[in-house]
Amino acid sequence: MDYEFLIKDLKLNKSQKAVGTDKGLAKIGDGIVNLTYSIAKSIYLTKNSPNNNILRTGLKVSKKILANALKNANLKAFAITRADAHDLADTAEALVAFVWLDKKISLDEIIGYLSQNLTGDLNIRNEEIKSATEAFTKLLNHIKEFLPNK
Amino acid sequence: MDYEFLIKDLKLNKSQKAVGTDKGLAKIGDGIVNLTYSIAKSIYLTKNSPNNNILRTGLKVSKKILANALKNANLKAFAITRADAHDLADTAEALVAFVWLDKKISLDEIIGYLSQNLTGDLNIRNEEIKSATEAFTKLLNHIKEFLPNK
Repeated sequence: MDYEFLIKDLKLNKSQKAVGTDKGLAKIGDGIVNLTYSIAKSIYLTKNSPNNNILRTGLKVSKKILANALKNANLKAFAITRADAHDLADTAEALVAFVWLDKKISLDEIIGYLSQNLTGDLNIRNEEIKSATEAFTKLLNHIKEFLPNK
Repeated sequence: MDYEFLIKDLKLNKSQKAVGTDKGLAKIGDGIVNLTYSIAKSIYLTKNSPNNNILRTGLKVSKKILANALKNANLKAFAITRADAHDLADTAEALVAFVWLDKKISLDEIIGYLSQNLTGDLNIRNEEIKSATEAFTKLLNHIKEFLPNK
């Protein structure tokens, strides 16, 4: 299945803003981020379960986590000017979708990246926010080299 | 990245109800269904665009579509008794997640399956519901052989 053509326009006319503010790309990225984080969290919880329970979970990654990860990774230049947390999160999602559609990273690699970088007790909401922000920051830093440089 | 262990319990104690009514599996499946349908719809819209526009979109597949697909594929035995549309949709999602985690189908294959089976004008809501229901019915019929047989 080939679907790289879905970003052909963005590759021809590549700019940080064009990629980072594309609404459709952000929607696709939303799906990628939620699915990969759900699997990564399930892996992490299962591997760290005190009684070897298998834990499967699925969830929506909060906008706050993605917005902060984008800032931490110094990728705000891809977002609209005066972006709020929602805009910044959309940009983070668009960047992940762009790199994935461009086949520079696979879903398995994203899952691996996130699950390896999770830490702490994810059942405590504040710890999860901190840990997930850190994991997404590392993911964004990792994919930076595949993004337009201006 | 290996995460087949996330269904180890369900594979040891395999039953149609155990797989089809697992809440965590349904949540993971929700992510798979939404992401793959978003890409499949983007592919379909782009390939059928009258002016060769590239269209990227992301969306949540409605419970009604998945519930009807499960019924059409004769897989209601996997759901709880007296299941409503929401329960049936959850079961459809759980089945997709099970087969994917079991590595019997890849996301690319799901995307290919759905995009090849979409028809009509997806911008008309009723046509999309009909077309998506048909595509998910075909997907479920296809994965049936990888599901527990009792």
